[in-house]
Amino acid sequence: MTTSREERFARGMAVLTAVNGENGAKFIDSLADVSPELGHQVAAWAYGDIYARPQLPPRDRQLVTLGMLTALGGCEPQLEVHVDAALNVGLTPREIVEALLQSAVYCGMPRALNATSVARKVFAARGLLPVRDETQGD
Amino acid sequence: MTTSREERFARGMAVLTAVNGENGAKFIDSLADVSPELGHQVAAWAYGDIYARPQLPPRDRQLVTLGMLTALGGCEPQLEVHVDAALNVGLTPREIVEALLQSAVYCGMPRALNATSVARKVFAARGLLPVRDETQGD
Amino acid sequence: MTTSREERFARGMAVLTAVNGENGAKFIDSLADVSPELGHQVAAWAYGDIYARPQLPPRDRQLVTLGMLTALGGCEPQLEVHVDAALNVGLTPREIVEALLQSAVYCGMPRALNATSVARKVFAARGLLPVRDETQGD
Amino acid sequence: MTTSREERFARGMAVLTAVNGENGAKFIDSLADVSPELGHQVAAWAYGDIYARPQLPPRDRQLVTLGMLTALGGCEPQLEVHVDAALNVGLTPREIVEALLQSAVYCGMPRALNATSVARKVFAARGLLPVRDETQGD
Amino acid sequence: MTTSREERFARGMAVLTAVNGENGAKFIDSLADVSPELGHQVAAWAYGDIYARPQLPPRDRQLVTLGMLTALGGCEPQLEVHVDAALNVGLTPREIVEALLQSAVYCGMPRALNATSVARKVFAARGLLPVRDETQGD
Amino acid sequence: MTTSREERFARGMAVLTAVNGENGAKFIDSLADVSPELGHQVAAWAYGDIYARPQLPPRDRQLVTLGMLTALGGCEPQLEVHVDAALNVGLTPREIVEALLQSAVYCGMPRALNATSVARKVFAARGLLPVRDETQGD
Repeated sequence: MTTSREERFARGMAVLTAVNGENGAKFIDSLADVSPELGHQVAAWAYGDIYARPQLPPRDRQLVTLGMLTALGGCEPQLEVHVDAALNVGLTPREIVEALLQSAVYCGMPRALNATSVARKVFAARGLLPVRDETQGD
Repeated sequence: MTTSREERFARGMAVLTAVNGENGAKFIDSLADVSPELGHQVAAWAYGDIYARPQLPPRDRQLVTLGMLTALGGCEPQLEVHVDAALNVGLTPREIVEALLQSAVYCGMPRALNATSVARKVFAARGLLPVRDETQGD
Repeated sequence: MTTSREERFARGMAVLTAVNGENGAKFIDSLADVSPELGHQVAAWAYGDIYARPQLPPRDRQLVTLGMLTALGGCEPQLEVHVDAALNVGLTPREIVEALLQSAVYCGMPRALNATSVARKVFAARGLLPVRDETQGD
Repeated sequence: MTTSREERFARGMAVLTAVNGENGAKFIDSLADVSPELGHQVAAWAYGDIYARPQLPPRDRQLVTLGMLTALGGCEPQLEVHVDAALNVGLTPREIVEALLQSAVYCGMPRALNATSVARKVFAARGLLPVRDETQGD
Repeated sequence: MTTSREERFARGMAVLTAVNGENGAKFIDSLADVSPELGHQVAAWAYGDIYARPQLPPRDRQLVTLGMLTALGGCEPQLEVHVDAALNVGLTPREIVEALLQSAVYCGMPRALNATSVARKVFAARGLLPVRDETQGD
Repeated sequence: MTTSREERFARGMAVLTAVNGENGAKFIDSLADVSPELGHQVAAWAYGDIYARPQLPPRDRQLVTLGMLTALGGCEPQLEVHVDAALNVGLTPREIVEALLQSAVYCGMPRALNATSVARKVFAARGLLPVRDETQGD
């Protein structure tokens, strides 16, 4: 099986659009005047070659990605995209918030707080606040 | 409901042992002569208070943790513990390897390679090599 | 001795308020609609269980925390809180600035500059500029 | 050969001005009321003692610096200064963009995207958009 | 133009071998039993798609990579490979050492010292010690 | 007041030796064949220019440095030197262990555990185990 550069890009864009809707295409477009090749690689490689692999379902990929972006720090724009994507592939706000709570254990409170602040922003934009947490009381 | 310090510790140790077997207790013991309070907090807080919460199942917690430890870098001892724990709670070697492959996208190749090297060590010790990857061919 | 979840939270809030004034409570409140459990853990665990321990006085805790937040990077909101707290527990602007100068040696100039910029903002809000540095001349 | 503190500072300011124009002096001035010593060290040490060494030409120094600032994360203000400086010492927009593309391999997509976004801002301010990339097609 | 998965891999392996000699192939082989797909991506993507692009010559790519690996920390195995590769593509030991000296400014002394220690190991294995530094005296 | 390069180096070496004993000189010597300039800068700049400043006493400098090295990660060799130095300038094992316990809050458990493991090694070499922690019980 052979593929052209254009086919790989198209395949990746289809995955990216399925996950992020039209914001995905807008993002790739925003790189067109500065680094179209980086845009190509995000689509063709990150989404087309890696994300699309069937060995891990989208929900699992978003969980592990939330962990990575929280730990890296300074990735608030990407966290915003992936909290949104996480909701799109079936993670609930409560599961997302719980994953970020766990990041306090491994990355410390500042990273957990910064990531939770980004999640709050995404939840607010989608009308998902307040996030219910039934275990809060004893 | 009230709990004593000892009850919180015991609850955490039960969770830790369920996840990591007797290695968990050995690890807490190894801190006894230098920082017993840190050992207490790992058990009572990290495992008893956070990990034990029902809002996210153990398999999901290990997935997000593998992402965090890979991204942080320099956490090879902890990665070894959590690759082992990930296997214990139902993640397959192939799923673990795939999550680490995805870390190449977000953390770069060096972090992905270092984490995969740790996973390989754990898999080897448990007789789980080679990891099968049926999608390797076209 | 036993404690309830509410008692641990109340104890932590008392410590947090002693350090950060009413901003501490506002911060915990700001998490109420997205992750009340994270707010609980910041108060009950970070302040109630760890910060409150008598083994290290508040001034020392803020010093080591300024070092950690500077090194982590991307923790400007937390640095702002802790520069303010550092002033509240007795560190002088000149000592804070000197600790951040030393961070240039261990974390590099960008981290030192970003942290100093945050400190400047806090000092300005409290009318503490200019910071005197008598050793500037020869 | 002996030098005074003032001579070392003056030597560093000359280097800094050669690289960054009058923005360099403005930056050092901006530290005058909070940490004049940090400003002194940036000029006298970072530029006067290290950057000025003839063992590596300015273009090479900016290349390696772009790599470091991208990898560190959270250094957007410094990246902006150094993308500007990189242009001043002879790196082309296309070379800068290509170096940042390569950072995707080592630091992951988020760091590459954040750095490229900073580069785009600098290029836009200098009328250097669009950056041409002739290899984009097949 | 279309390419197959095998052609992309072969192209990347040719680049990798040109840079790292037979150690490159050995490294890819070492991933065969744990994550052959990661090995494939290192070769086909990192070397075949990115490194091979003509927009930046190999010497420049190694310079920026040395900066990134030093800044990331915890990438000693990769630094060892890339110090070796840097020598292969024309950087001198003195230029490498100077780039790592500059990392002290941006990443702090610990990262600079750790990277220099790795460089020393590679230089020793290739009989390149001592590195001459004629500007050491005044 | 003017100083020569040699005077700055000698002043720094005196500070370094006062803090780390003969290990300081051995460390600078170990850089002689690879990067004598880096050795010069560690002594002359890091210790002579920054550490020696009277604005912060040595005990405070070591506290903030322990925080930075723990947060950076991958700095185990430097942490070993600075835990040793911290003991030399008056921090007790219990204070050091407590500072590292607090790092769990800001940097997460893995960084706290790695740093505590380094501290344990230094304490063991100096016959300082077990570290007493009287608040361990209720």
